[in-house]
Amino acid sequence: MPYINLHPDLFGITSLLDFRPEAAAPLCRLTQILLRGPSTLTEAERELIAAHVSSLNECIFCSTAHTEATCLLPGGSETGIEPMQTDLEVLHLSDKMKSLLGIAAKVQKNGNQVTQEDIGKAHLYGATDLEIHDTVLIASLFCLYNRYVDGLATKTPSAPEFYTNLGKRITARGYLMPEDGYHATDYKPK
Amino acid sequence: MPYINLHPDLFGITSLLDFRPEAAAPLCRLTQILLRGPSTLTEAERELIAAHVSSLNECIFCSTAHTEATCLLPGGSETGIEPMQTDLEVLHLSDKMKSLLGIAAKVQKNGNQVTQEDIGKAHLYGATDLEIHDTVLIASLFCLYNRYVDGLATKTPSAPEFYTNLGKRITARGYLMPEDGYHATDYKPK
Repeated sequence: MPYINLHPDLFGITSLLDFRPEAAAPLCRLTQILLRGPSTLTEAERELIAAHVSSLNECIFCSTAHTEATCLLPGGSETGIEPMQTDLEVLHLSDKMKSLLGIAAKVQKNGNQVTQEDIGKAHLYGATDLEIHDTVLIASLFCLYNRYVDGLATKTPSAPEFYTNLGKRITARGYLMPEDGYHATDYKPK
Repeated sequence: MPYINLHPDLFGITSLLDFRPEAAAPLCRLTQILLRGPSTLTEAERELIAAHVSSLNECIFCSTAHTEATCLLPGGSETGIEPMQTDLEVLHLSDKMKSLLGIAAKVQKNGNQVTQEDIGKAHLYGATDLEIHDTVLIASLFCLYNRYVDGLATKTPSAPEFYTNLGKRITARGYLMPEDGYHATDYKPK
């Protein structure tokens, strides 16, 4: 049961976007820029950062949704990512992505956990300043989302089909904004 | 020394807003809506949530800036808040604000730390669903900001005058967006 009076047919983040549309608009726009905007990181790599941080924060809704999105995008399923997986060692990743996910995992704990050595390793494996920046900001953004979703006890569906459908939506349409025709009720399960 | 190549004259969050203006625009707009938009929580109360979460995350830049902002706003200095103060017991707060800051402190740890009892207490002291929602989202937003600022090792000024000036800016102007004439370089110290 959610802690506040959310739309009874909505789940996870979608119930919150519906509750507070003024805040939803810039939050969705920020997400669209970071996860779908121009970048030298692939969309699958950026979704993987979102999925990994969400798993570390034990947020089942976000971890499952962004793992699904990762696997639907080119190159994503080859990594072997699964929902709520926190061990990076079992994944098939480039050294650059390993180093960036290592930074994301430090950010999940706290910003002050990231060291010059972590950054040096990412640079060594070819990561640019912008890629490091976006990794830190995506990790920070999912520390926001995970707290928002779980802090208000939004409903977490257990049916895998829910996440398959949600993953299809966010890979096909991205993180559309309310003023661009987005409606949280579009995410209602069938 | 920041971990990436930021404007050498800028500090903390302002150096990051300058580095990635596409992300800065929606981030500033979200902050403006939550901290300055219409609300039954005063601006000082909302800045206090930001300051408290930043203190718990040990983010000196954000804690000092938002404590300064709190104290410049009506009702703020009477609370007795100081930078990096994590003990709420010493502050002069209403029971409602104590319960909301208690929720914010749980969110700082993780979303799943918030209990029905925490929410029940806030409701008992007169907090509305929207106030509880905004408390959770402001706390989550500062979990983002604190990680963003410290995760990239942005410069933290030690001079108190820097934060006095920054506090004056954000209480007088709010969290203006780049497309609304905001420029991060406006925040350069004199």
